[in-house]
Formats: sequence, C-alpha cells, structure tokens
Amino acid sequence: MTVSTAAILIVGNEILSGKTEESNARFLIGELRELGIELRRIVVITDSVDEVAAAVKELSSLFDIVFSSGGVGPTHDDVTIAGIALGFDEPVIRHPQLETRIRQYFGDRTNESRLRMADVPRGSELIEAPDLRWPVICCRNVFVLPGVPELFRMKFQAIRESFRANPFFVRAIYTTEDEFELAERLSEVALACPSVMVGSYPNFSSTDYRVKLTLESKDEKAVQDALSKLMACLDDQRIVRSD
Amino acid sequence: MTVSTAAILIVGNEILSGKTEESNARFLIGELRELGIELRRIVVITDSVDEVAAAVKELSSLFDIVFSSGGVGPTHDDVTIAGIALGFDEPVIRHPQLETRIRQYFGDRTNESRLRMADVPRGSELIEAPDLRWPVICCRNVFVLPGVPELFRMKFQAIRESFRANPFFVRAIYTTEDEFELAERLSEVALACPSVMVGSYPNFSSTDYRVKLTLESKDEKAVQDALSKLMACLDDQRIVRSD
Repeated sequence: MTVSTAAILIVGNEILSGKTEESNARFLIGELRELGIELRRIVVITDSVDEVAAAVKELSSLFDIVFSSGGVGPTHDDVTIAGIALGFDEPVIRHPQLETRIRQYFGDRTNESRLRMADVPRGSELIEAPDLRWPVICCRNVFVLPGVPELFRMKFQAIRESFRANPFFVRAIYTTEDEFELAERLSEVALACPSVMVGSYPNFSSTDYRVKLTLESKDEKAVQDALSKLMACLDDQRIVRSD
Repeated sequence: MTVSTAAILIVGNEILSGKTEESNARFLIGELRELGIELRRIVVITDSVDEVAAAVKELSSLFDIVFSSGGVGPTHDDVTIAGIALGFDEPVIRHPQLETRIRQYFGDRTNESRLRMADVPRGSELIEAPDLRWPVICCRNVFVLPGVPELFRMKFQAIRESFRANPFFVRAIYTTEDEFELAERLSEVALACPSVMVGSYPNFSSTDYRVKLTLESKDEKAVQDALSKLMACLDDQRIVRSD
C-alpha cells in the first residue's frame, strides 16, 4: 500500500475539557512529517460511539490511513472499538487469538474487563512487532492506538517504518517586508508553481523578521524553481535569512 | 443567546505539517472550560475553501457556537472567509463600514490586499470591543478569529464574557486500584448517575497512583451524590488523595 495522506482521530472528553493536555497528535504531526506522509486532518471528539462511527466513516474514506488515539481501555467511557465497528457496519467480535493470549498472560486474574481487550471490529488485523507485547489492531485503514501517551508512542514507533514515503522538501525565507505588500507577488508565484505549496506566516513577536515564507513539495526541483521565482520578486535588502 | 456547546475549527496547513505548533485551541480549551461552555469538538483542516465550507456547515449545525482560527490574512492561502461564505451559501461582500475604516486608517497605503480585510460573508455582524482596533467578525454562530496567537487571544479576550455560562463542578479521586478491577464498579456508578460524567484515566508514569477517577456535572449536588456512591464502592485503603 502506498500511503500519502493521513488523519488523526483523538477520542477523549478529557482533552476537550482540559483535564489532560493533548500530546499524541502533537507527537504524530512530527512523526508523519518525517515519514513523508501528508497529515490532512485532526479531529478531537467526545467519548461517543456515534461520534466515533461518523468520524471513522468520513476520515477513512477521505484519507489513506487514519490513526485513532484513546478510548480503548476497559471502562464504560472506552467506546472506540464499538464506534469503529459501527462506522464500518461490522459487529464487534472477540478475537480468538487475542483472547487466548490474554488468558495465558493473566491466568487467574483474567476477568471480563481484561477480556474486553480482545474485542475488535470484525475483519481487524493484528499487527505484531518485536517490541510489542500486544499487537496493534488495524481495522481496514484505521490503526487503533491507546490514549496513554507512553503506550501511544511505543505502539506507533513499533510500526512506523511500514509507512515511510518520499520526503518533503521545504525552503523558508524570512523577510521584513509587510504581508499586505507581499500578497500579490506571492499569489503570482503560487499560480506559476502549482505543485509547490506557498505559505506566508506573519510574525508579531520576533524582532528580526515580519513574514516567514515557505515553499514546499515532494519534488525538489519544483521547490528550487519556485525559490528562484520568489527570490526574483522579493526585495533582497529586506531578506533577513533563509533556510 | 444561551450558549452551552462549542467547537473549534483550526484552518492551517502550517499546523498539520508541523511548521507551527498549535496553541490557539490549547488556549481556548481552558478559556471555554472556565466560562462553563462545553467544548465538544476540535477540527484541524488544510487551507481549502471546500474543507472550510464543509466543516463550518457541520459544526455550526451541531453546536451552539464555533470559533475559527486562522486563514484570515491577505494572501492566497487565506481562505476562511470564502469557506464560511460557501458553507452558509452566502456571497462574500465588502463590508462598507470596514472598508471606510481601512481607508481612513491606512490612507495612502490602502491597497487591494488591505481592503480584502473588509471582505465578509454576507450577513456577518461586526462585534466591537473597547480593546479592539478591528472588530471580531461573526457570521451566524461562527466567530472568526485570526491564527496569529497574540491576535487570537486579544480578540477572544475582548468578547469572552459574553459567553459566560454556569460553571462545571468536578471532583477527582486518585487510587492505586487497577483500572481492570475498577471497570465494573465504575459502570455501575455511571449508570446510577446519568447526569454526571464519570471519567477514568490510568497513569503509567506517576509513582503514587494508578487511576484518576473524575466526576463532573453542572449540577453540584449530582456530583456530591455520585461521589458518595463512588466512595462506597472503592477500597478506601487504596485512595491516595482526592480533590
């Protein structure tokens, strides 16, 4: 599978109510970037089966892969598995292989709450990795990750290399010109270089530049061409630096 | 207008690509909480007119108010106004009052890029506040805020008190019991107290507790009742603290 686009679905009242600071999307943004995958959407929803179902249905059809975070523990507010199943119109089944491993691992301490960890939407795959005691559950193109940041990172890192794509190329120019004066010239560069994403980010706190301009593409030559065009229309006396 | 639910719409490739760390939703989570408004969703999308339109249409119909962040500058990648207009099936018009103020303020430096700041979806209101040079644009129930964090905060703070609602009441208990052992008892409390949100958050890094349990409602007495029920079924030897 060639992966080029991704979405992140964060399930958790605790994020929306400010009880817990979000860190999984924050972490994944950098990881996906480094892997050359274009992150196209992040959605944070409450612990609701219907909301998970609707979000999974939409995100999985719009983007190549979806990472969910949270809602996979044993308590009443853990509804991600049920929501994904509903979104894909599949029942939740108890995965025989997972059930066996849970019974073996917990022995006498096996109870219904622990066995719930073997429940998956029908048709899910188990992705094993050497560093993982428990596999990552993948339902169609949705990778189900836990909300606890340490576990989220551990599970993602165990599977990350399977997603590696071609890298992004980015150039940035920092100028003291005003964004209102630059807007028209930037539009011309953006129009002339449709394969390059041209970004413009005003800065009100830094003392040494007013606008950061970025050029970005997976095509390195296209970025170089856009850079030449951009440099040709900027006031070079007002460029602070580039990187 | 009584406001009880809200959503945040972040428009910005720079967030999704990791060029800029998201801070406006992070800020607003705390503000809305303090105001007694239930934040129900956060969506981060790319700089696309169609994506803004679809998100605005959905969020504005599901929740009482929506705050958008970003995409309101003068450059080609600033598409929030066009997207909101499309989502509400309204044209973008140049607001006469805003245009006059821009012409007065900038005088000879008035240009098309600056005048674009007077473009709003038809039917928008201008919300003035003593601390603001430029009003907040509000289109139906969507409050349009800039992406630059300093400006976002300044504009939100100028209008925040108009949203104040009844406060939330929250109690938290920290225990060394295991979430897998607690799950069933928590379900019973949640079932017995439908007006209270019962949360369970395992912790793998702290040394002194394993699970944080939270009880939350706008009804203070309901939280107290739920707390009594919860305490009655917890092992009090294993409660580390409560707040």
